[in-house]
Amino acid sequence: MIIGGGEDKTDARKVLQRFITLAGGPQQLLVVITAASKMPNEVWEMYRNAFEELGAEKISHVRINERAEAEDEGLAQRVAHARGIFMTGGDQKRLVAFLGGTQIEQAMREAHAQGACIAGTSAGASGMCTHMLAEGEAALAPEKGAVRLGAGLGFISRVIIDQHFSQRHRINRLLSAIAQSPFLLGAGIDEDTALIVRDDSIEVVGEGGVTVVDCREARTNVADIPPGAVPQMLDVRLHLLPSGARVASLAEAGPLADFITYLTDRTTEHDHH
Amino acid sequence: MIIGGGEDKTDARKVLQRFITLAGGPQQLLVVITAASKMPNEVWEMYRNAFEELGAEKISHVRINERAEAEDEGLAQRVAHARGIFMTGGDQKRLVAFLGGTQIEQAMREAHAQGACIAGTSAGASGMCTHMLAEGEAALAPEKGAVRLGAGLGFISRVIIDQHFSQRHRINRLLSAIAQSPFLLGAGIDEDTALIVRDDSIEVVGEGGVTVVDCREARTNVADIPPGAVPQMLDVRLHLLPSGARVASLAEAGPLADFITYLTDRTTEHDHH
Repeated sequence: MIIGGGEDKTDARKVLQRFITLAGGPQQLLVVITAASKMPNEVWEMYRNAFEELGAEKISHVRINERAEAEDEGLAQRVAHARGIFMTGGDQKRLVAFLGGTQIEQAMREAHAQGACIAGTSAGASGMCTHMLAEGEAALAPEKGAVRLGAGLGFISRVIIDQHFSQRHRINRLLSAIAQSPFLLGAGIDEDTALIVRDDSIEVVGEGGVTVVDCREARTNVADIPPGAVPQMLDVRLHLLPSGARVASLAEAGPLADFITYLTDRTTEHDHH
Repeated sequence: MIIGGGEDKTDARKVLQRFITLAGGPQQLLVVITAASKMPNEVWEMYRNAFEELGAEKISHVRINERAEAEDEGLAQRVAHARGIFMTGGDQKRLVAFLGGTQIEQAMREAHAQGACIAGTSAGASGMCTHMLAEGEAALAPEKGAVRLGAGLGFISRVIIDQHFSQRHRINRLLSAIAQSPFLLGAGIDEDTALIVRDDSIEVVGEGGVTVVDCREARTNVADIPPGAVPQMLDVRLHLLPSGARVASLAEAGPLADFITYLTDRTTEHDHH
């Protein structure tokens, strides 16, 4: 469950409610990982309130404020048994630096393999990718070198996730990223919006939409221009999925088939475990 | 010459300088049509200063403040003999209401047929299209019915022009328009940027770029959703042309061939004259 940040925590809470449902209901074990945030306690309190008001009975805080804490066996056990694992926002570099390759990350994979719902919002969403959009902005046009990728947690391969997408007008930032890595697809998730990936299905819930950008067949001069220059890009493909959009299987995916295959392909992660 | 508004009028003035060059040089007859503006004298003074500082020797104001004035034979003669015709910003509905089907419009066509450069900036650019983007906004996603088209002057057919494009984050507005008219292409022009169309060539000059959106092969549910709802749009094609981009002929146009053909096809205008 990939959330574009800014999800409603006090009113209808469609996205958070859906997380609970995907985890199997409010009586299931849920954990909130605040490693991305520099204010983990405040963030935890906010989510605890939101989830408890939605009926969550067994929700706990996985507070990781330095990398060593992510090797804690007890915490890892708790994560491994969780049915819902929610990564909050903050800074995706912090999240990944603390979690990547640790016992907690391994426990998240175990839980995921057992059918747990892994959710990330904002930085927690960006950090789910193998190739993480780490930083950078491109204001009015794509720019060569405007964004930096980093190694992410790898729950999603071959797709670069960006968040707060429409609200922060980030299409140029995402295009900057995939212009230089055209074998990856880009997915921009709006605020208070989640892309749910399960088996071969995807669904968009919440207030906004999901924008998919595909440069695999684009013609661009990005390799030949200096850093900071704006590339020409022809034949970029764009898919806009509003809230409520749902593709139930690859058979009905049409032009989204590769996007779904990429999102659900675990080959790359398995390679390095 | 289609200008996205906000062109530099005091410094390097690349776009305005290019207009003079396209008109044949500063000794040629140039006219500035301020019909779009409610402050025609102020706008005229601004452009007069800018063009005179660039060396323009014979520049004059075509001040049309109501439709009847656009039937003035003397004014029309002046326009017909101009080598450069520049339409300022303001409100494209005003521009078209005052000029459409008048002697002045006919004189512009005559001048154009004789090789004069027709330029429009901002509202002057939008008003050049047969199908003019008249009003409406779509903030964070395309929305059915968000924009209204109007009948424009028809110097450009089968392409909807939007202006101030990147600066006002108008991609969703342009997508809203072409989602419902997928046989038209959309072209978004950035501020201080011009798309120059001549014979079978196009060129982008100035500070920004031109974004072309193509929904001709897109799959969308826009017909089935209520007004105000956000359509799903799959397989939208996007072309980004930065400043300096140039296609010299259809033979080298690649995926831009149809865009150029559309921009240069005068069939539609000829139909109604």
